[in-house]
Amino acid sequence: MLRTHHCGQITSAQIGETVTLNGWVQTRRDLGGVLFIDLRDRSGIVQAVFNPAYSGEALQTAERVRTEYVLAIKGTVVKREEETVNKNLPTGELEVRVTEIEVLNAAKTTPFFIEDGIEVDEALRLKYRYLDLRRPEMQKTLMLRSQSAKIFRNYLDEQGFVEVETPILTKSTPEGARDYLVPSRVHEGEFFALPQSPQIFKQLLMVSGLERYYQIARCFRDEDLRADRQPEFTQVDLELSFVSRDEILGLIEQLMAKLFRETIGVEVQLPFQRLTHAEAMSKYGSDKPDLRFGMELVDVGDIVETSEVKVFASVIGSGGQVKVLNAKGCGTWTRKEIDDLGPYAARYGAKGLAWIQVKEDGFKGPIVKFMSEEVIQALRERTDAEVGDLLLFSADKKQVVADVLGALRLKIGRQLGLIDDSIYKFAWVLEFPLLSYDEESKRYVAEHHPFTRPLEEDLELFETDPGAVRAQAYDLVLNGYEVGGGSLRIFEHDLQQKMFRLLGISEETAQEQFGFLLDAFQYGTPPHGGFAFGFDRLVMLLTQRTNLRETIAFPKTASATDLLMNAPSAVDQGQLEQLHIKLAPKPAKKPAAAESEQA
Amino acid sequence: MLRTHHCGQITSAQIGETVTLNGWVQTRRDLGGVLFIDLRDRSGIVQAVFNPAYSGEALQTAERVRTEYVLAIKGTVVKREEETVNKNLPTGELEVRVTEIEVLNAAKTTPFFIEDGIEVDEALRLKYRYLDLRRPEMQKTLMLRSQSAKIFRNYLDEQGFVEVETPILTKSTPEGARDYLVPSRVHEGEFFALPQSPQIFKQLLMVSGLERYYQIARCFRDEDLRADRQPEFTQVDLELSFVSRDEILGLIEQLMAKLFRETIGVEVQLPFQRLTHAEAMSKYGSDKPDLRFGMELVDVGDIVETSEVKVFASVIGSGGQVKVLNAKGCGTWTRKEIDDLGPYAARYGAKGLAWIQVKEDGFKGPIVKFMSEEVIQALRERTDAEVGDLLLFSADKKQVVADVLGALRLKIGRQLGLIDDSIYKFAWVLEFPLLSYDEESKRYVAEHHPFTRPLEEDLELFETDPGAVRAQAYDLVLNGYEVGGGSLRIFEHDLQQKMFRLLGISEETAQEQFGFLLDAFQYGTPPHGGFAFGFDRLVMLLTQRTNLRETIAFPKTASATDLLMNAPSAVDQGQLEQLHIKLAPKPAKKPAAAESEQA
Repeated sequence: MLRTHHCGQITSAQIGETVTLNGWVQTRRDLGGVLFIDLRDRSGIVQAVFNPAYSGEALQTAERVRTEYVLAIKGTVVKREEETVNKNLPTGELEVRVTEIEVLNAAKTTPFFIEDGIEVDEALRLKYRYLDLRRPEMQKTLMLRSQSAKIFRNYLDEQGFVEVETPILTKSTPEGARDYLVPSRVHEGEFFALPQSPQIFKQLLMVSGLERYYQIARCFRDEDLRADRQPEFTQVDLELSFVSRDEILGLIEQLMAKLFRETIGVEVQLPFQRLTHAEAMSKYGSDKPDLRFGMELVDVGDIVETSEVKVFASVIGSGGQVKVLNAKGCGTWTRKEIDDLGPYAARYGAKGLAWIQVKEDGFKGPIVKFMSEEVIQALRERTDAEVGDLLLFSADKKQVVADVLGALRLKIGRQLGLIDDSIYKFAWVLEFPLLSYDEESKRYVAEHHPFTRPLEEDLELFETDPGAVRAQAYDLVLNGYEVGGGSLRIFEHDLQQKMFRLLGISEETAQEQFGFLLDAFQYGTPPHGGFAFGFDRLVMLLTQRTNLRETIAFPKTASATDLLMNAPSAVDQGQLEQLHIKLAPKPAKKPAAAESEQA
Repeated sequence: MLRTHHCGQITSAQIGETVTLNGWVQTRRDLGGVLFIDLRDRSGIVQAVFNPAYSGEALQTAERVRTEYVLAIKGTVVKREEETVNKNLPTGELEVRVTEIEVLNAAKTTPFFIEDGIEVDEALRLKYRYLDLRRPEMQKTLMLRSQSAKIFRNYLDEQGFVEVETPILTKSTPEGARDYLVPSRVHEGEFFALPQSPQIFKQLLMVSGLERYYQIARCFRDEDLRADRQPEFTQVDLELSFVSRDEILGLIEQLMAKLFRETIGVEVQLPFQRLTHAEAMSKYGSDKPDLRFGMELVDVGDIVETSEVKVFASVIGSGGQVKVLNAKGCGTWTRKEIDDLGPYAARYGAKGLAWIQVKEDGFKGPIVKFMSEEVIQALRERTDAEVGDLLLFSADKKQVVADVLGALRLKIGRQLGLIDDSIYKFAWVLEFPLLSYDEESKRYVAEHHPFTRPLEEDLELFETDPGAVRAQAYDLVLNGYEVGGGSLRIFEHDLQQKMFRLLGISEETAQEQFGFLLDAFQYGTPPHGGFAFGFDRLVMLLTQRTNLRETIAFPKTASATDLLMNAPSAVDQGQLEQLHIKLAPKPAKKPAAAESEQA
């Protein structure tokens, strides 16, 4: 009994027709000798009716059917009587009167209901992922993911990109995150590494004159996980030769417009807003600002420097900042409500959180008494303070001020209902710093990666002030998430070597680790640049989810475990011998440390 | 100077226009103060002319340009004079008179020429793969591969398949080839394995009710390599629920017809020929027969059984076979030519190779004297022997006879020019044996994999004669290559357990290794089946190559080495410590064995 139609696609056009359907029993109701089964397949649900008047034999078989049994049924499509219409189902005006049934497979009682919006421990859902994925909302997510990949590919194909698969078994590189390693059986004592990204391969493809490359690529990072990290993740990766930065940005904007239009019917606003990194940090305290609302941070250092609030003066004196977040309309918060912000701010490094309530009769709060009327007036103007507002002060190093007020801006904006979840607000963050100084290793490290091109006008700062060199890098930001990033690349052998030197990578190490790339750069490398989207995260935002695991068919937990397959797992001693390795258990003396690493 | 056109796409439509081109210097000829540069990009080549009459400055710059330099040029498209037309170039009637030039990058002399058909050691090509891929034939292969992937995806998408990415970091399973392992940092002493195929995941997706899944999936096998094997390879993987075998075969036939039509303009013949496995082995001595020519093997056991050729009688007596390959028109071969077949046959297990020349005056050859006139007459009829033919005999166990005569058939067919390389002859090989008996481990092993469905009519042989049970498996064969295979699957918990028992997998082991699958089968699993194409091999056949490495951007050598990146390689001790492993060097006492494993 092979299907003629899908359950969810039965319409009034089929009335009177005989159809054969395949699917799962969603529900089963026995109304005194007549049996109603909601049959579900990927397309939706339709009601099947078993009645001795249609077939006594079919009814008899149907009686032993339970939820999630797999059925094939044959019957006639009929319009339901008015009072039995189910307005919640697209097929709710119809039913199938069953004349034949075949039970294709039985089912035990499932550990949770197969329906949307269940509240079930995620670990249980992951263990029974094959049942979790039966739920319509999960299927829709997988289908939207598949559709999104198709939109990416079709667009890039139209734009002349060639899809190339790059290796998964590749070489370990010392920069960046931790690699996953794969011992070699053939080459004793040697290891492959799984790629953190196809970065080097895509640049080599530009050296190859492929001109436009893309790949929906699996990448791997052995890092401690958070809610929005997975040990393996998917990136839409592309690289182009002979293009300007603005051509790349324009191409990506068109791509995003197409993706959002064709998947969820949203018209995003073009062109995307552009901010420099400096501007983003200054106004929003973040390099991935949520631009769906305002509430910009305001620098008040020059104003409060002269006040008698000692911490302000001392912070300014030691090169720090004092900034204000004006929480509009929060001036009526109770002391407790304001105090509750303290521990939250502390998580982002705040040592304290000064505040001022703007009342009818002026500024109120513990620090007001240390301020002159001039200071108060200046603050009022600078921060656009009106009666009913709450001014929150952060005074610290630049980065701490940004982190603290950036986080408070998001928290209070959300609390005040300023964030409209139906809006998709893209922005470009441009001119990232090329390098950042790593206090621990006392050296500069690449902010993006060591192949990022510096701004031509900053090249002279290479020797004098490396930290001030800006990169030709661009991040794509959506509603406070970084959904992608890229840069123009260094394509000159000499500049690349200079960059390695700046990063404290010796010529010898550079040659050993990236020799093939430095070599390649000597054989006619075109100017090139690229981009990579975090595909999992984009799908998460398209489907209004907050957890990457909801967008991945078989994800891993925060401790990098596959609860379905039970992986990783122990292996045979023989397998290890073939790979020329053995286990090296950690000394037992530090159980606490060992345990914390498992957390 | 951003390009306005691509080099290979300059046509007479552009005559008189000013164009800007980007590309590489293919050749450079200095003809007494006038300089000709063939400029190459991905699309092709066009001639650029530098003449003081167009721009003295441009000429001066162009004079320091060498092969493979990267240029941007601006100039006017002009029709060449009749006598300078280059008929070998699509743009050969045109040239670009250059008024501006920018040298974007210089190039050292490349280790080999960037042109098609070079004869260069493959190791050198792989070390400089980024230059090798600059050659037009390699770029065309990569583009055809990309185009093929697109055709697969579009077709499967139209047919309602959902693309799902399955994990690369997964669980080691004891069946099949050797796994690549990945030590876990978080879970001490445990390992992930890289998937040999997404088999289990795709079946779980059917349990999930996804109904139609596909993926262009990377797979990994740590096996000793041959010319047509790679440690990581790509497979177009699909799985369907609620379908018959013939629906799957029909879908694949349409897909292949579309692929061959749209990539290389070949109309393949539909429907594909169908053979059972038994038939293929019997007629062609191969489960992947090349059907572009006949030369079928002929069983003559019943005829020669009664002859006085003792080896024939004894082979038949012990359950073996005697078969003949009639090498049409090879009856005039010299004794030496015939004898030279011996060592070749021996490579496939032949202990000897009896033969008969069919001359004007009858059968000639060492064994003829042991044959009666009746036997000779019967042989003549059975093998369709005519004057000028050469009959080659193999007498041995069934498998050896098939291997020997199957190989000779291909060798002689090729030698006689019977194989037309412009023909693409697909066939289905059906009804493979479900199991084969492994002499070494004294147990049955799965011919395909342990999830393959037996033929319903053979189910009763499960207990009595497992070796005779046929599988609902199908291989797709093209010109003597297996390009894909699949099967209907077991979807019943009980039958799957029975299968594991038959394979000597204890209930405990089955539970430990495949428990989640056996569990899943209890929750309403639909009937399902699937297929997987060897994508690398298909591209190899589409591009008339004989080596898989030509179809992969960054392949590994036969010893699983990446010569470009120099992977695998040694890693830091610190990395190993984090992964809780250490090196276990092989005892030095057997240097010979160690060496042979490196080969």
